[in-house]
Parts: sequence; structure tokens; C-alpha cells
Amino acid sequence: MQNFVFSAPTQIFFGRGTEEGVGEAAKKQLGEKVLLHYGQSSIIKSGLKDRVCRSLRDAGVEVVELGGVLPNPRLQLVREGIELCRSQGVQGVLAIGGGSVIDSAKAMAMGVGYQGDVWDFFVGKAMAQRALPLGVVLTIPASGSEAGGGTVLTNEDGHLKRLAWSEHVIPRFAIMNPELTFTLPAYQTACGGADIIAHVLERYFTNVREVDLTDRLCEAVLRSVIVHLPVVLEEPENYGARAEIMWAGTVAHNGFLDVGRLGDWACHSIEHELSGLYDVPHGAGLAVLLPAWMRYVLEHDRERFQQFAKRVWQLDKAEEGIQALAGFFRRLNLPGRLSELGIDDARFLELARKCTGNGTLKVGNFVPLDTEDIVAILEMAK
Amino acid sequence: MQNFVFSAPTQIFFGRGTEEGVGEAAKKQLGEKVLLHYGQSSIIKSGLKDRVCRSLRDAGVEVVELGGVLPNPRLQLVREGIELCRSQGVQGVLAIGGGSVIDSAKAMAMGVGYQGDVWDFFVGKAMAQRALPLGVVLTIPASGSEAGGGTVLTNEDGHLKRLAWSEHVIPRFAIMNPELTFTLPAYQTACGGADIIAHVLERYFTNVREVDLTDRLCEAVLRSVIVHLPVVLEEPENYGARAEIMWAGTVAHNGFLDVGRLGDWACHSIEHELSGLYDVPHGAGLAVLLPAWMRYVLEHDRERFQQFAKRVWQLDKAEEGIQALAGFFRRLNLPGRLSELGIDDARFLELARKCTGNGTLKVGNFVPLDTEDIVAILEMAK
Repeated sequence: MQNFVFSAPTQIFFGRGTEEGVGEAAKKQLGEKVLLHYGQSSIIKSGLKDRVCRSLRDAGVEVVELGGVLPNPRLQLVREGIELCRSQGVQGVLAIGGGSVIDSAKAMAMGVGYQGDVWDFFVGKAMAQRALPLGVVLTIPASGSEAGGGTVLTNEDGHLKRLAWSEHVIPRFAIMNPELTFTLPAYQTACGGADIIAHVLERYFTNVREVDLTDRLCEAVLRSVIVHLPVVLEEPENYGARAEIMWAGTVAHNGFLDVGRLGDWACHSIEHELSGLYDVPHGAGLAVLLPAWMRYVLEHDRERFQQFAKRVWQLDKAEEGIQALAGFFRRLNLPGRLSELGIDDARFLELARKCTGNGTLKVGNFVPLDTEDIVAILEMAK
Repeated sequence: MQNFVFSAPTQIFFGRGTEEGVGEAAKKQLGEKVLLHYGQSSIIKSGLKDRVCRSLRDAGVEVVELGGVLPNPRLQLVREGIELCRSQGVQGVLAIGGGSVIDSAKAMAMGVGYQGDVWDFFVGKAMAQRALPLGVVLTIPASGSEAGGGTVLTNEDGHLKRLAWSEHVIPRFAIMNPELTFTLPAYQTACGGADIIAHVLERYFTNVREVDLTDRLCEAVLRSVIVHLPVVLEEPENYGARAEIMWAGTVAHNGFLDVGRLGDWACHSIEHELSGLYDVPHGAGLAVLLPAWMRYVLEHDRERFQQFAKRVWQLDKAEEGIQALAGFFRRLNLPGRLSELGIDDARFLELARKCTGNGTLKVGNFVPLDTEDIVAILEMAK
């Protein structure tokens, strides 16, 4: 086990009706004037935005609005949001939505107090020294962004999708009512599930030895997601199953499952280039890439893949575990091949080169991949 | 799943050499003058106290010392500590030790800013409104007190052992170096393990439905403890195994395993009376009580006991799971009967009545127990 530092400071309010308390939480933790950040019309249609605004008003919190976040959130809107926060003297940011909205809100919160361009944080030119406090009302279980310090943004100029991290943007609170996910379309639910599974697997495949407890905690989350994802697709209003998935999404990515180990993260890196170039849903990209990556790196540590097969799928052989995962994604109507996402091999080399910084760095920790490896994985997935 | 609020704000510094950073952490989170609180001579003999004091001095933190905490920590020393903190103008408390020292430190931290007697917090007469900030250097994995808000204290007057809880005494940081547990005697290691197992089981046996993910996380912790406890008893300096146990102790009790469910806690209540009256080690008392309690309440939810047998022990029958747990404790040289702790049935009724407030309340949530039930369980364990 490696040395580690861990805390999970985000205050989670989980369960039915918890969004009614958003005003109180915002007043206490964000300030008296907040930017309400959201995506498209779904939270307006569902009435959620009205309920949140009412709660904020009742608590005496003034609201400035900025909607319009798209999946794979864009730099341009973040820049607009930063200007808006500055001109309006906003004290905190409240994100209502899923990972895209939360990540967009985090980038804004980091950018407001920074003199330079916010993109600097995403290309390693600067580290955030401060940020506006952030709160979340979560509507899509997937990214885990509601309880972590990471934010992924797409720069339209060059289709670059990049990650920044800062402890200052770990949300102060996250409101998580599984009922708010009842209306999530099946495909989006499945994509979210694939993202959750990927967050666990990126940590599970490690070269660090003596991480037994965390291995088992990873397997517990995987088992529970595998049991409940088909249930929520079958019964979208099954509260219990929606609750399991929603909580799994947070546990998978709040740092709890990677204590003492070094995760891999190659699939996430490759997928970021994929959705940067082709604007496909992150979870769909991962569903295609994960099994291909697993087959490609299998021989590096067959024993670990055997453990995965055995403990997660009750299967004996390493290959059977990978096959079971691919079959599971397939049964959720997720794509199994890049071609199903409308992606052919025309830009594989370009994509792989973007990933490795034109061959200057390797991608992933379990098996560090070079440009050729990535092309080979994309070929297997095409 | 029930609604819940969760956060795990304690900053954990885990791994080799982490105690060298205690000065920095204390300066940042506790203040410039701290009370160093500890137990008996072991941390002096091992040189740990010197190392901690040096780190504090180097960081410019002034130290006031108060040692002498006994297992099942006493109210009298806490009262002395509160006076000392006040007269010396101490800004924070640093506990070096296990659960007893941490709990004693928490009680002091709560008491300093309170006008009345600190015992008020333990009998429900007052709730702490503030506390001195608290840090921990953990030397015994068992209580989980390093990352929670609970403190258990014994009032010598009436042999009353009682619990108080306050968010204000959740430690700001906890330094956890598994090497510091290498010298822990075998019996104390085993008792600590039994306490960890009990913390999980008290949460595992619940009447709340649809708590699958947390069930599985509980089972993961149990499996890992069951695998590694015999290893650390066999090889006290096995870093990897000590690390698994140490981290399991925190995970078992930092709130993560009881989100969305209502735990039982009858065994802890009964054991507190037991060690209040007889001053036996908490973990030893639990090792005797848990299997007896399980047999007594088995028929209340045979299916849950079957799940425990199946998933934790790979055994088919409910009874076999209980038997396996009892046998496991036995193999760790923990007592299996009250008589082995020198306790006969002379005071069973007195003990049970103390537990139920003379019959005015029931104990436990899975199966609420009255005085007669508790006597019956003690009879089964005698």
C-alpha cells in the first residue's frame, strides 16, 4: 500500500425531498448571491429549477442565472460565466445537473479569482489558488464530480478535452435525490453506469501490491452497479435501485477507492480525445474502450484479471471476466464498437498522437501506452 | 434506503513516516499551543512521543502535556485536563494513542468552552456548541474514533460508561502509520480487530431494506479483516497486513458504512455496561457478546444471517456464519465466554437494568431488547 492523504469533505444530503433544503445550504455555504448554472431545458420542464429557485428565494439568496451547458462542456460558456460572476458580484456557484454542468461550474469558480485565462488550469500553466464556493444539485449519477476536485472541459479551438484538478473546487455540499433521476433517458442512464464502472476499474487495475481492502471495496461497488443498472433500465422509477446507482456514482469517484494505490486512467485519457474529436457521450466511449483495453493489457497481470473475473462475475478465467463486462454493456444497449458511434479509423493516429502529446509521454500507469499501443487498442475497438 | 447526510472531513495522513508531519498539521489546524494527551509509557519507550514533540517544536508549536489515560478512560482525568487547558490557554488538543486517549481528548475539547460539568454531555443534559480543534496520532486500530465524533467515557462514580457525540470533536486530522502498530501486543491487536468487526456488524444488521451497496461494502471490510487479522498476529511487523487492518478500522466507523441505514448497537450498549462494571477490554467483551446476541436474534431475520454466512464466510446456513465468527474469535485467542473474563452471573440483572435505564427503554434497533432479553443473552454468553 502506498502512503496517502484522504478526506471526503463534501456534505452529502441524500434522499427524497433533499432539494427542498438547497436554500439553507446555499445561504450557509455559498453566500447571499449565487450563480445558478444548468444545462438545457430538462430541469425547467421537470419543475426542478422552479423548486430550487423558490428554496433559494425563501432563504434570502439572490440568484443570477446561466444555463446552456452542453454535454462535453465548452470553454466559451465558462469564459462568459466568469465575466458574469465578476460583473454581478456573485459569491458562490450552484450547479444543477450532471457532470458537464458541475465541471463547467467548477471551471468558472476557479476562473473568477484568476487574472489569466481559465484554460491555463487545464494545460498545466497555472494551479488554482482559490475558487468561489460551489454547491451541487445532482441529476445524473455518472461523473462523481459532485464530490471531487476534478473538472473536464472542451476547448472548441482544436477539439481539446482536458482535465484540471483543485481542492478548492471540491463542492461544499451536494444534494442527491434519486427521484430526480427517474426521468433520465435509458441511454443516458446506461452511459452514466458505464462511467461509474470505468471509475472503479481505472482504480482497480493497479500495480501496487497489498491493497486488498480497497480491491474488495471496488468489487463491492462493481457488483452493486451490475445488479442495479438493469433494474433501473427496466423500472426507471424504482427508487431503491436508483438510489444504489446514485450513491455508487459518488463512492466510485470521491477518492475513497483509490487510497493507497495508483490507478491507470488510460481509458479515460483516450476517451477524452475521442469525445473531444467526435463529441460522443463519455460513457458510451468508455463502454467501447474498456473491454478493448482490457484485452490488450491482459497478459501484464493475468492474475488481477482472474481476480476480477472470479470476484465480480463468479467466473474462473481472466478472459471470461472481460467478456462478461463487454456482454453486460451490450445488454444495456451501449455500443460495443467504435463504428456504432460513427467513428472509423481515419483519425486513429491523430487521436493517439493527441493523447501522447505527439509521442512525448506515455498514457496510463498499469501499462504505460505509447502512440502505437493506443492505435492498436482503437483498432481492436473499431 | 433512508435519507442521510454524509461527510468524512478528517484529513487522514496514512503511511510510513507520516508522524514526521505532525508539527505542520498541528500548527495549521490546532494552533500554536496544544495539549499533548496520551496514555501510559509505551509511546515514551518507543520514542514516538519524542519524535512528535520534536516535530511540534520544529513547527513552533508550544506543548503542554497530560498523560495517564487508562483503557476505558475516566471522567476524573478529563476534568483535570479541562482545568489544565483553561489555565494554560491551550488552543487545541493532540491525542497520541488509541480510542481511549482520543475519547478522553475529545471530552476535554468539548468541556473547555462549557460552563457546566463535562459529564452533562454524556447524560444528555447538554450538547456541545463548540470544542477545541483536535488532532490524532493513532497507535491502535480499533475504535475508529480517529475519524468520528463519538467519545465514550467512564464515570468512576457508579461505574457508568456513556457515549457523547458532537460534530465539533470530529478530528481535523489523523496521522496513521501502520508501523506504529508493530509493537502492539497480540491480545490488544485481537481485541482491536473484534471492535472493528463489531463496528461493521452493528451496522450490517438492520431492518432497512434496499441497502445493497452498503451491505457489500460492509462485507468487503469484514472479509479483509478476517483475512489479515491472523496474519498480523502471526507476523506483527507485516506492514501490508497492518495497513489493511488500520485502514479497515477507520472505514468501519467513519460513517461510510451506515449511510442510509439504521444500525443496531445493542452489543455496544451491553458491552459498555460490562466494561463499566468490570473494566474488561471493550473488544474482548464484544467478542463474547456478538455471537450470543446473533444466536438470540437469529429468527428475526434469518435471511440476513444467511447472507452474512454466504457472502462473508462462503457457508450456506445462517447458523454456520455465527459459528464461523465465534470460531474466528476463538482462534485469535479472544474469550468465548464471560467466565473467561472472570465475570459470573451475579450481576446480570443489575447490568441489564443499567442498560435499559431500569426498564424504561429498549436497547438496539434490529431487535429492541428489554431487560429480560439482555439477561437471556448474558446467560447464553456466561
